Amino acid sequence: MTDLEPKAFLRALFDQAVCAADPLFAVPPFLPEPPKGRTVVVGLGKAAAVMAQAVERNWPGPIEGVVVTRDGHEAPTERIEVLSSSHPVPDERSEAGARRLMQAVAGLGPDDLVICLVSGGGSALCALPAPGLTLADKIAVNKALLRSGASIDEMNCVRKHLSGFKGGRLAQAAAPAKVVSLMISDVPGDDPAVIASGPTVPDPTSYADALALVRRYRLELPDAVRRHLEAGRDETPKPGDPLFDRVENRLIAAPQRSLERAAAFVRSHGIHPVLLGDALEGESRQVATVMAGIARSVRRHGHPAPAPCVLLSGGETTVTVRGGGRGGRNVEFLLGLAVALQGEPGIHAIAGDTDGIDGAEEVAGAIVAPDTLERAQKLGLDPRAMLEENDAHPFFARLGDQVVTGPTLTNVNDVRAVLIL
Amino acid sequence: MTDLEPKAFLRALFDQAVCAADPLFAVPPFLPEPPKGRTVVVGLGKAAAVMAQAVERNWPGPIEGVVVTRDGHEAPTERIEVLSSSHPVPDERSEAGARRLMQAVAGLGPDDLVICLVSGGGSALCALPAPGLTLADKIAVNKALLRSGASIDEMNCVRKHLSGFKGGRLAQAAAPAKVVSLMISDVPGDDPAVIASGPTVPDPTSYADALALVRRYRLELPDAVRRHLEAGRDETPKPGDPLFDRVENRLIAAPQRSLERAAAFVRSHGIHPVLLGDALEGESRQVATVMAGIARSVRRHGHPAPAPCVLLSGGETTVTVRGGGRGGRNVEFLLGLAVALQGEPGIHAIAGDTDGIDGAEEVAGAIVAPDTLERAQKLGLDPRAMLEENDAHPFFARLGDQVVTGPTLTNVNDVRAVLIL
Repeated sequence: MTDLEPKAFLRALFDQAVCAADPLFAVPPFLPEPPKGRTVVVGLGKAAAVMAQAVERNWPGPIEGVVVTRDGHEAPTERIEVLSSSHPVPDERSEAGARRLMQAVAGLGPDDLVICLVSGGGSALCALPAPGLTLADKIAVNKALLRSGASIDEMNCVRKHLSGFKGGRLAQAAAPAKVVSLMISDVPGDDPAVIASGPTVPDPTSYADALALVRRYRLELPDAVRRHLEAGRDETPKPGDPLFDRVENRLIAAPQRSLERAAAFVRSHGIHPVLLGDALEGESRQVATVMAGIARSVRRHGHPAPAPCVLLSGGETTVTVRGGGRGGRNVEFLLGLAVALQGEPGIHAIAGDTDGIDGAEEVAGAIVAPDTLERAQKLGLDPRAMLEENDAHPFFARLGDQVVTGPTLTNVNDVRAVLIL
Repeated sequence: MTDLEPKAFLRALFDQAVCAADPLFAVPPFLPEPPKGRTVVVGLGKAAAVMAQAVERNWPGPIEGVVVTRDGHEAPTERIEVLSSSHPVPDERSEAGARRLMQAVAGLGPDDLVICLVSGGGSALCALPAPGLTLADKIAVNKALLRSGASIDEMNCVRKHLSGFKGGRLAQAAAPAKVVSLMISDVPGDDPAVIASGPTVPDPTSYADALALVRRYRLELPDAVRRHLEAGRDETPKPGDPLFDRVENRLIAAPQRSLERAAAFVRSHGIHPVLLGDALEGESRQVATVMAGIARSVRRHGHPAPAPCVLLSGGETTVTVRGGGRGGRNVEFLLGLAVALQGEPGIHAIAGDTDGIDGAEEVAGAIVAPDTLERAQKLGLDPRAMLEENDAHPFFARLGDQVVTGPTLTNVNDVRAVLIL
């Protein structure tokens, strides 16, 4: 067993998981060989700037390029230009940024290399309307899609057919140069076609598919959009297109990778890790109730693993906001867990967002211990009432049990760890 | 791998779990040696009659006694009398039954043996008001407790101090005879003091504790009840009381035992079982969402175990009724699971109540397969709408995927199994 106190152990575990997704560590092992010709870096997403920084620091030859990141997510670079843009709703900078990326990869030859840096949020940060369409058209369609009940895959099919950038078109523009995309996944299943809408990934869907969805969900579309889909000109590049023989998409960080790093850390302390999934969904406090049940099973029956063990899970839970408090997915999960465990001895937990921001707060998450409810009671806090009010941030702030990392400039969703001694 | 089709495999698994809790199989291995003197059987709970039948069939000598079971849960016996009574609200038969049990064990000697058969529901089926109280007093207190927000342990503390039967008093009445209790657990944690309120188990709580709870929750009590608690006469027997040197409480069936039997069955087919807990709680459809996430993790990452594997869990989930449909905990879980999995290949599931009745229907549960949603669509069923209406029984009835066992006359809560190929 570890010499660390449970609280310190769990914080170190969380830091390991974040570290596994930190571009400064995750990018270098995946960099390709330098080409004979030019090396051009393009990128989009919340981690784009710090990914560019990681490339610059580790690239042996000349390099140039431009990336688009979210306001506030900039990082200092020397040779790669960093543009900022708007998230989650795109603005004119999203369009200008996308055009800059397309220009950067235009006119390259077969000896040149494009390194494309892709992370979550890229879809909004770079939005290039297909010829004849406007950004307002795209935003209107997006709103209609969000109301329609269409699945995320279905929404992406329509979006990719309104874009001059998504669904493999960036790779198309970069041909005949070699393209290596380095990707950080924040989507369930880690499908490269979904991360930032897959600008370097073949698109298996067609204009006909998009039109079928428009009919099925009775989407009201701007006239220009309807004409564009019906004309069906300039299809997105498809799987099997020889263009992709020169394109490689490399996943460099993902929820499961971070959980596996955490599991290795746990194992190195002589504790048994149980990986329950990198994409768990559900209402935060309900996921907590289930985790409490599994933790109790470990204590009572030694299943799914004997104690000491750590239950690890990732993904994004959901908070249905009913109260007027300040909360986030992770602290709501933890407050729900504390209430479900009712001070059961020997069970500690941490949960946090790997981007360092749980909800709207500058706090990544918090830590729960067997004495959490008792200490709360002494401070006059009512855990059940605060849970009802979705007021978990103040709860853990008063206890001094918040986990603060600052913005990490990466994102592989949440990490939850329940330690059973 | 098994030769069985997934549906047949899962049904056989469920039957194994129920079989492990069937009194006809579970009672005999736990029967004590016959005594020099008389053998008297008493019992209470939904399984009492069939437990008595199991004792009769396997007892080598003379035997007599009386048990109280729920209306409709009778079983044919020859030497042990079976009384019926009301559940979940006690009636005058509950009081008469409790008195009959107390009389049956009165006046025995040290060479005599009492076999006490305890199962869920016993608390309501046998209700003996303490001297000076009435059944109406007890029912009034129970209502006040249910409204108060008190925990189940706290409610039991108060109840035991208003009873002439619960909290070890039956064992007290049987002294100096030897007492062996055979118990079927339907409570999280399997605490013998909680199953049917522990008529043969020492009670660690006191009149003072009960009064403190009355004050804390500001319970409005009938005058006779308040006077009885304040008088504090004739305390329940406590742990360490020499009386319990002659009492043995044996757990003969429990949720975890049934899950372990199912796990052994799974293992015998070359499939890896993962036991996630015997007392999982939470909203049924939310538990389904979490299970879907764990099942996907098995397929994508081989964690918590490589495929083929079965995720096993027990306990009672909850349905917050919003619609006007016909549902139950288990079928609601399954419909939620089918919606969450969206036809993901290679994943099948069963869930059912081991008593054979999921909710108010004469159906134990149902089975989900990868083609469940597709077949439902062909029949014109809308899974999401039916889930919103809590209308899962008709959903699975139309598909022909219900699991019907008939009443099993035992109960170790629910069994859920998710098979990932």
